[in-house]
Amino acid sequence: MDRKIDVTELALRDAHQSLMATRMALEDMIPACADIDAAGYWSVECWGGATFDSCIRFLNEDPWERLRTFRKLLPNSRTQMLLRGQNLLGYRHYEDEVVDRFVAKSAENGMDVFRVFDALNDVRNVEHAIAAVRRAGKHAQGTICYTVSPLHTVEGYVQMAGELIALGCDSLCIKDMAALLKPQPAYDIVKAIKAVYPDVRIAVHCHATTGVTLVSLMKAIEAGADSVDTAISSLSLGPGHNPTESLVEMLEGTGFHAGLDMEKLYRIKDHFIDIRPRYAEFFSGITGVETEIFASQIPGGMISNMESQLRQQGAGDRLKEVLREVPRVREDAGFPPLVTPSSQIVGTQAVFNVLMGHYKVMTGEFADLMLGYYGRCIGERNPEVVAIAQAQAKKDPITCRPADLLQPEWEMLRAEATAISGCDGSDEDVLTHAMFPKVAPAFFASRSEGPKNVGRDPLEVAAAQAAQAAGAAGTGSVRTPISYKVTVNGTPHSVSVAPA
Amino acid sequence: MDRKIDVTELALRDAHQSLMATRMALEDMIPACADIDAAGYWSVECWGGATFDSCIRFLNEDPWERLRTFRKLLPNSRTQMLLRGQNLLGYRHYEDEVVDRFVAKSAENGMDVFRVFDALNDVRNVEHAIAAVRRAGKHAQGTICYTVSPLHTVEGYVQMAGELIALGCDSLCIKDMAALLKPQPAYDIVKAIKAVYPDVRIAVHCHATTGVTLVSLMKAIEAGADSVDTAISSLSLGPGHNPTESLVEMLEGTGFHAGLDMEKLYRIKDHFIDIRPRYAEFFSGITGVETEIFASQIPGGMISNMESQLRQQGAGDRLKEVLREVPRVREDAGFPPLVTPSSQIVGTQAVFNVLMGHYKVMTGEFADLMLGYYGRCIGERNPEVVAIAQAQAKKDPITCRPADLLQPEWEMLRAEATAISGCDGSDEDVLTHAMFPKVAPAFFASRSEGPKNVGRDPLEVAAAQAAQAAGAAGTGSVRTPISYKVTVNGTPHSVSVAPA
Repeated sequence: MDRKIDVTELALRDAHQSLMATRMALEDMIPACADIDAAGYWSVECWGGATFDSCIRFLNEDPWERLRTFRKLLPNSRTQMLLRGQNLLGYRHYEDEVVDRFVAKSAENGMDVFRVFDALNDVRNVEHAIAAVRRAGKHAQGTICYTVSPLHTVEGYVQMAGELIALGCDSLCIKDMAALLKPQPAYDIVKAIKAVYPDVRIAVHCHATTGVTLVSLMKAIEAGADSVDTAISSLSLGPGHNPTESLVEMLEGTGFHAGLDMEKLYRIKDHFIDIRPRYAEFFSGITGVETEIFASQIPGGMISNMESQLRQQGAGDRLKEVLREVPRVREDAGFPPLVTPSSQIVGTQAVFNVLMGHYKVMTGEFADLMLGYYGRCIGERNPEVVAIAQAQAKKDPITCRPADLLQPEWEMLRAEATAISGCDGSDEDVLTHAMFPKVAPAFFASRSEGPKNVGRDPLEVAAAQAAQAAGAAGTGSVRTPISYKVTVNGTPHSVSVAPA
Repeated sequence: MDRKIDVTELALRDAHQSLMATRMALEDMIPACADIDAAGYWSVECWGGATFDSCIRFLNEDPWERLRTFRKLLPNSRTQMLLRGQNLLGYRHYEDEVVDRFVAKSAENGMDVFRVFDALNDVRNVEHAIAAVRRAGKHAQGTICYTVSPLHTVEGYVQMAGELIALGCDSLCIKDMAALLKPQPAYDIVKAIKAVYPDVRIAVHCHATTGVTLVSLMKAIEAGADSVDTAISSLSLGPGHNPTESLVEMLEGTGFHAGLDMEKLYRIKDHFIDIRPRYAEFFSGITGVETEIFASQIPGGMISNMESQLRQQGAGDRLKEVLREVPRVREDAGFPPLVTPSSQIVGTQAVFNVLMGHYKVMTGEFADLMLGYYGRCIGERNPEVVAIAQAQAKKDPITCRPADLLQPEWEMLRAEATAISGCDGSDEDVLTHAMFPKVAPAFFASRSEGPKNVGRDPLEVAAAQAAQAAGAAGTGSVRTPISYKVTVNGTPHSVSVAPA
């Protein structure tokens, strides 16, 4: 008897977040929902991560309405979200009541499975969210962020698994956000957790960036993993994930099967083949694979960020120095995993160190990281750098759970939110404001105009460019730069042409 | 002790053949040779396949000179080529003396490893070439083309392995040209061959199109494969091959290692990152993965060919019918593997069947296939279709080795070749004429002009398009060079464009 491997489809959340800057409009996903609902997935990730932020910042979409729509269109599926523990979907720690209310409202609006993680793997930062999910009667998935350092061991991951299980998690996720999980460690970690906790359900989430992680999923499955994450092929690979159809085919004859309906998968694939080119301008520069991540441990998206930071400072030639500096900064900080927001914090500090000298200028966020305000890391922090952080931030290091320092804030957030024009007074709107106080007012003001689809028909884009070029040339000369989208090997480049 | 897995690098032959229609100029490969030579590969595939044809047809390059150049620039490496058995690098069967002379001249000009295959897996068609390689004192690799049908079994592949070993092959290759080899069959076939022939060296060659074959390489290695084929990451994936760097990383900790120098690999990768965009216009439409190949068994390149054939006939909407017809035609022909030239022969006949009715019109090549003039297939041919072929081609079916019907032809080929203006009278030139009689005269005539690099700077392409758009809209033509400032992804370039 083949053992069934459950699959979580990522097309509606992490796939487009990783490939096209989270820009996909709900209306471009709706036509695929019936097939997704019927294909046989264990769950459908469709909310959380950066989608909430992107909805209100770029798409004029109410994220809560998106959730309710998915709930309606996926009646036979478990919906799934990614939740940053005590940070919810924002970028700071929230007081526990806000966490409670966010989880309760997410459940009420249709969320089934909550994958809860903390960027530092500090279990104290996920504890409250997991308890809230359990109280809501929903599936709480505790998450281990996979990273590599001299201190990270299989035994350490087993220990963290035990801590998450002790919180009452319904399942565990090994989250490999940078595609660093090689086949053998994938096997060893799953095997070791299952040896100690044979009944725990283990899901494995890998990105595809380094090209090795479909092999890692195979090895994790051989070691006993119950569930894996994939994305339909037309929204897969590069900085995204392994293709769902390839997973299905890979398992044939191995004693495992994914139990997915291939005809449905092809229909989902065909839908997104048509949709994908509409978002070409948002695509990541990475196609193919990038294995140098193993050396630098820096996710691809972070490298492009650093390149642009460096160019802005007229130091575009110093990327290699920065790539060498990142591991040192990470070691000073006690070897945090590099994932939102720790990746940005460590990366930006590495840029500052290279441009301005070793910790001559420290970002506020990095100081907070060094002083414990994001939680604790696996390693000791470099005491000299802690001292610099303390002097600069004029704050003492802490060892408690960061949220323990917070005062009750729900009523204040409610008062703030309801004072904003366009806020409808619901808890959902208060939560939107709580997580994105700078973005929410503009969104509340424009919400009634309805969603803005930022995808564009590639033919219309080309026609507009041709018309623009013709118009500019017709007037005698090209006065303003003309922008072209030049796609080389499938990678879009922004090219602007102006008279010299 | 880790077991070392040998690696054949494909960058210089099959990678650019699969990704960019074999158009890469020798001068764009030369700068990578020192690093390739020092990286630790078991062999470097750099000749054969379609490169010979492309050299004389598109690049005005003497393929023999290309071989001698690689021999010089790869002094520490085994050079490797792909040879289509009795077809050599052409598209018909050659009389044995031509085969002998081709192999001898290839060896003399610097070839070390000859991977010899037949599109129908008819061992009689590789026998003579393998004997010639052995006489030349070079490495003869007998090849099993992997395909899937009701008649193809692990036992059948083991039997074919035995037949190749009996010919004195130094090693075997399992050649998965369409990326159909899934992990479990990869394991089973290698394991079964090793069980019967424990000392035979087995290389596994997979394309990456379906996204599963890096897993297949892992499984083949676990089953005892000695060697695998990969391409440097910047020339990998899509219809090409799995990335070399990913293979190296995949093996870490598994008990196997590739013994390659990662710093050298990064340098090779960086070189081809720069080169690749110059050939954008030749790129295959396939990026990402394509798993529907498993259902239709039709390689990606063949699908685009069929689409364009159908469109030319105003039947662009009938692709699905053709995709369903291909497996029927293949069954009628006795389940040949689909690889050059059988893929084209079967695919074109399927198009004819859909457009004009079931074998109402039969191509000459398909009739020859049905009558045994390409060799024998694993299955019985459909006798009704054989009868149609016989009636149309006015030839009897044969069961002998096709080349046995050929008269000695070397002296005639020599006389033909030396009569062509520009032929230098060498055996190499005679062989060039023998394989490509329609192309050789133009090549001999223009050879003295030297190689033509068909790669183009993408910035110049963009600027030329802009100038053309501006010119077309304005004065109608661009007479003098125009200077543009072209900004690509934020980096400014000075580009001047003039009419060619």
